[in-house]
Amino acid sequence: MPGKLVLETFGDSWSLLIIRDIVYFGKKTFGEFSESEEGIASNILANRLARLQQKGILVKKAHHSDKRKVVYSLTEKGLDLIPILLELAGWGARHDPQTSAPKGWIDMVNADEQKVTRLVRETVQNGGSVFVGPDNVFSWLSQAQIEGK
Amino acid sequence: MPGKLVLETFGDSWSLLIIRDIVYFGKKTFGEFSESEEGIASNILANRLARLQQKGILVKKAHHSDKRKVVYSLTEKGLDLIPILLELAGWGARHDPQTSAPKGWIDMVNADEQKVTRLVRETVQNGGSVFVGPDNVFSWLSQAQIEGK
Repeated sequence: MPGKLVLETFGDSWSLLIIRDIVYFGKKTFGEFSESEEGIASNILANRLARLQQKGILVKKAHHSDKRKVVYSLTEKGLDLIPILLELAGWGARHDPQTSAPKGWIDMVNADEQKVTRLVRETVQNGGSVFVGPDNVFSWLSQAQIEGK
Repeated sequence: MPGKLVLETFGDSWSLLIIRDIVYFGKKTFGEFSESEEGIASNILANRLARLQQKGILVKKAHHSDKRKVVYSLTEKGLDLIPILLELAGWGARHDPQTSAPKGWIDMVNADEQKVTRLVRETVQNGGSVFVGPDNVFSWLSQAQIEGK
């Protein structure tokens, strides 16, 4: 069963929110995380970022062009949470439809969960996300649907 | 993406612990939940049980033989969290092996996740669990392996 450490990592809504913001919206900096509509306080955000690094889920690096800037990204261990995030979104869509992701996205995941999971993982690993950025998974898959790929 | 409500439901380690105890250990009563090794305080347990009912994940009923006793069980919405719990256990086993489920169990889930998920769901729905009780999933699957089914 999920042990205590797993419950502590995953069973914290602010930690989940940070991971969600990276995967779905491509957020990377302290400032971006703090702008989430859920309104996370700065001290809690700093605490959770430190905890997620300590648990090996996030790493902190200097921004590739602006070295004064710090960016956070998911480790392999963090990327391995992606299938669970996608399942959670599906559960939310089934049971709390008013708060969930765009229906088009849920349909894409349901149509081929393994393929979409792989695609999201690769995209996030390369700095992209599900909904935001030039190579976002949602518009890529929408385009592929239109072109009948 | 998982919306705010989903994060609140799932992103709480005590709520996750209650759901875990039902699915893996067949716990059903306030007393049983309060005995978990994680040491949940009575007021927090009462609060989370109320919240999980309010969110439609748990229902409270009178015990079938002893009507003075109250038992909690998962609704359909709660049972739909089982695949996510199994994935979390798998993630824990890969990344925090010292705290996780018995290796034999993780192997069973990996061998046929869909089948095991279905079996766990049916068992829990009928009042059983993964590790505890006369028809627990773990011993059933172990027996099936020995008999080469």
